[in-house]
Amino acid sequence: MSLKGYSVPRTSTGVASLVPPPPWHYVGDFLVVDFHADPAAVVSLLPSGLEPHSDAGRCAAIFADWQSCTEDGEEFLDPVRSQFREFYLVVNALCDGEEVTICTFIWVEKDFALARGWIQGFPKKLGEVWVTRAYPLASRAAPGVAVGSRFGATCSARGTRISRARVTLERPSETGSLHSAPALVNVRHFPRLASGRHEEPAVHELVKSLSRDHLIADAWEGPAELELFPAAGEEHAILAPTSVDRGYRFTFACTVDDLETVRTID
Amino acid sequence: MSLKGYSVPRTSTGVASLVPPPPWHYVGDFLVVDFHADPAAVVSLLPSGLEPHSDAGRCAAIFADWQSCTEDGEEFLDPVRSQFREFYLVVNALCDGEEVTICTFIWVEKDFALARGWIQGFPKKLGEVWVTRAYPLASRAAPGVAVGSRFGATCSARGTRISRARVTLERPSETGSLHSAPALVNVRHFPRLASGRHEEPAVHELVKSLSRDHLIADAWEGPAELELFPAAGEEHAILAPTSVDRGYRFTFACTVDDLETVRTID
Amino acid sequence: MSLKGYSVPRTSTGVASLVPPPPWHYVGDFLVVDFHADPAAVVSLLPSGLEPHSDAGRCAAIFADWQSCTEDGEEFLDPVRSQFREFYLVVNALCDGEEVTICTFIWVEKDFALARGWIQGFPKKLGEVWVTRAYPLASRAAPGVAVGSRFGATCSARGTRISRARVTLERPSETGSLHSAPALVNVRHFPRLASGRHEEPAVHELVKSLSRDHLIADAWEGPAELELFPAAGEEHAILAPTSVDRGYRFTFACTVDDLETVRTID
Amino acid sequence: MSLKGYSVPRTSTGVASLVPPPPWHYVGDFLVVDFHADPAAVVSLLPSGLEPHSDAGRCAAIFADWQSCTEDGEEFLDPVRSQFREFYLVVNALCDGEEVTICTFIWVEKDFALARGWIQGFPKKLGEVWVTRAYPLASRAAPGVAVGSRFGATCSARGTRISRARVTLERPSETGSLHSAPALVNVRHFPRLASGRHEEPAVHELVKSLSRDHLIADAWEGPAELELFPAAGEEHAILAPTSVDRGYRFTFACTVDDLETVRTID
Repeated sequence: MSLKGYSVPRTSTGVASLVPPPPWHYVGDFLVVDFHADPAAVVSLLPSGLEPHSDAGRCAAIFADWQSCTEDGEEFLDPVRSQFREFYLVVNALCDGEEVTICTFIWVEKDFALARGWIQGFPKKLGEVWVTRAYPLASRAAPGVAVGSRFGATCSARGTRISRARVTLERPSETGSLHSAPALVNVRHFPRLASGRHEEPAVHELVKSLSRDHLIADAWEGPAELELFPAAGEEHAILAPTSVDRGYRFTFACTVDDLETVRTID
Repeated sequence: MSLKGYSVPRTSTGVASLVPPPPWHYVGDFLVVDFHADPAAVVSLLPSGLEPHSDAGRCAAIFADWQSCTEDGEEFLDPVRSQFREFYLVVNALCDGEEVTICTFIWVEKDFALARGWIQGFPKKLGEVWVTRAYPLASRAAPGVAVGSRFGATCSARGTRISRARVTLERPSETGSLHSAPALVNVRHFPRLASGRHEEPAVHELVKSLSRDHLIADAWEGPAELELFPAAGEEHAILAPTSVDRGYRFTFACTVDDLETVRTID
Repeated sequence: MSLKGYSVPRTSTGVASLVPPPPWHYVGDFLVVDFHADPAAVVSLLPSGLEPHSDAGRCAAIFADWQSCTEDGEEFLDPVRSQFREFYLVVNALCDGEEVTICTFIWVEKDFALARGWIQGFPKKLGEVWVTRAYPLASRAAPGVAVGSRFGATCSARGTRISRARVTLERPSETGSLHSAPALVNVRHFPRLASGRHEEPAVHELVKSLSRDHLIADAWEGPAELELFPAAGEEHAILAPTSVDRGYRFTFACTVDDLETVRTID
Repeated sequence: MSLKGYSVPRTSTGVASLVPPPPWHYVGDFLVVDFHADPAAVVSLLPSGLEPHSDAGRCAAIFADWQSCTEDGEEFLDPVRSQFREFYLVVNALCDGEEVTICTFIWVEKDFALARGWIQGFPKKLGEVWVTRAYPLASRAAPGVAVGSRFGATCSARGTRISRARVTLERPSETGSLHSAPALVNVRHFPRLASGRHEEPAVHELVKSLSRDHLIADAWEGPAELELFPAAGEEHAILAPTSVDRGYRFTFACTVDDLETVRTID
């Protein structure tokens, strides 16, 4: 009667677990737009433990077209269990004086990615994400990874448009997006339902993402467009761009099997 | 810099929270099939703190076609935020000598219902659920709530069939499903990701569901069919029926804003 | 080697046909809003063979939550094959002097309903439609069919909001929506692909809908709201309301197995 | 009052047309499995005008992960309007003595692709299709296009699994799939609804696909697996493999703006 499983549902074998145990290997095509939002809006989203960055309004919008697997690696033979797309917004902050980013809003297409996100502190909801693909041959139906090619992306949730971005490739990128360098922090949060204690989460901790075996390929950059649209029950549009900086397209791979707790939030 | 929200994502207002704060008001049409499975399979799914029931193999399969709202009650004017269908399996057990049921597998259609389920200890995944509807007029396209009418339901997940049920109405039901009377217990579980501690969940507690303001309408019963289908990454089919008992159709309403922790599971 | 099937794909048995042969029995809950649009916009949408109505701008927006079946009637036991929701707009016109309506835009959730619509001349696309449901008991989670109850509905397509409506029930309706009385005409249209003939459709005919065995139940009316939202690749928003008239909620059933060709359009 | 649009819905501008006018440019990643089925089953699916091939049971199963656009080419900046995946089965036949293939069953993910298929004679239904992707860097989460790499694909419809395939890359392919060389024929079919004439389609013609500007890249082959699963309302499983031949993976591009009518079917 001892149950196994990294997540629910737990059974005597653990096979049914929505999220298989780490390590989780990821590879994805990214479309990223650096931008600036109202600094006060950014600051209003910082959890306890983070301080405003000196360039407080700096943000990035990220569309990712992922394939992931666990150590056994067989999920990509049943790709409904390995593929997902997501859109997220990160903002700039300081954590104990260190420059960091934090993910404030994120939408993803699959349940396993939703739960795996919560476990890492990403505040995930379900959404539909679309990103232009490149193919390994020249066609009017696909932009090449080449000068002048254009890529687009959208996110919607509950039948309402959340965001839209476009990037025109200008040249290979040496730096990549400004949001890539800093450490990524998040807040792991799991609510309580006991009466009278709805405002005392069972889990509430500032965490720092740890990932390893980073690879990057085909990084390009160029001018970009970005729009964030208001929607019922959503607040991401408070980060509507006041200026749009550079856009980036690249392929990225990494592995996750650890997470650092910075501190518990009272 | 103090964030609000019953669930993630948390903001200065709490408006974007995937799960709004309780109370949660529910109303739904139910199609339920009582059945028996292999007692050893049932016992293999009991968490620490539960003991086998003397009729250990007794289970129920429940399809529910829900509409829910919070205290403000405005969600049903934007029904993408209030409607969802789910399919779940409960099994029989004893908790401190008391007869209880526990939900072992459950699939649901929306993100807010998935997260709200995890908070209550339901081990939810996403799935697609379909249930025959009755309409308030006689038509060949709809069964009436009347003698001889037939209702069907299916659940699928990741493009694979999970279950199928059929119930033929025979007479109004005085007792309702045998699974309805006992208290419902679940396990709240939230994983940890820190390296070396993957098997030490951050939250792991046996909880008893508390709900109030129960209403029931139009309860009928009759003979039933039920099938559970194996699927990759799923284990519900270990509860495949060894015998199928009565089926039930009814409408049920309740409100949830509390949960009792029975004990923490080590 | 003689193939059968009312629609594609055709086989030696016809079982795989996307659309089973008529008759098609329908039952659905309706939320309807009568409104007026710019008369010039309405007239711009009239096909050859229709003339403007004297009240040219009069339109209706219809949300329907359907269950349908064929003569065998077994589809509702596998409701993924019987249930669908749709949203459509009809406008006023004259056909050989007779007052008619014509469906100018329509979105539906299922492939069989999309194809069945094309066969009848409805210009269907896929969309997601949500409509508030009533349940047969009093609950904060469901409006009753009673004075003061509020119902909402939305349609979206390709991740973009198409429309939103709200109706508050005021009293049982004796007349029903003004759009219900006139005959419904449509244009059956099936394109040609042969080079140089892209503008010569293979089928292009004005048709009048014929349906029988109409039933109506629980018809109520009251004040309403309606919005139509612009979207890429869509033009329904040219019918944005200049004034919103009454709203209606009712349940309707009918059977379809015939269609009258008014004339071929050159 | 003259309406425009290559397909419905037609308006004064044609912008809302579900299918934009040709040419249609396509690029896609393909996973193909050549196989043999019961020759009698294949022959039972041949429309009037086709004769059995001497190797009558030879078939192919094709999974394609497409991006498409029209002459303006802007759809790929809003990829919900350009991307779709599909799964289809082709069988071998003779047409006026010429070796051809014909598509007997096909499922696709988007409405525009569904309708565009009907126009070309593909008997499309909606389905969900998943195909393993390759990424331009080495990762445990993605197979490379290299010796020993494995790719998988699935199709499901209405919540039921339709097919599953796996291919292991062994070496670059010089020949490609045996199904690629012959011309592709299909049957354009559009039903009639007038009472008494349900069995007299309005359009019923044998057509030969014409496409131009073919490009192919990265063609590999190797051993393969293929399963076809029975499902309610489906008949593709009559083509269940009696033997599975080679599998192929490649990227393919073409343009379509013409179709040849071979003959009308009485």
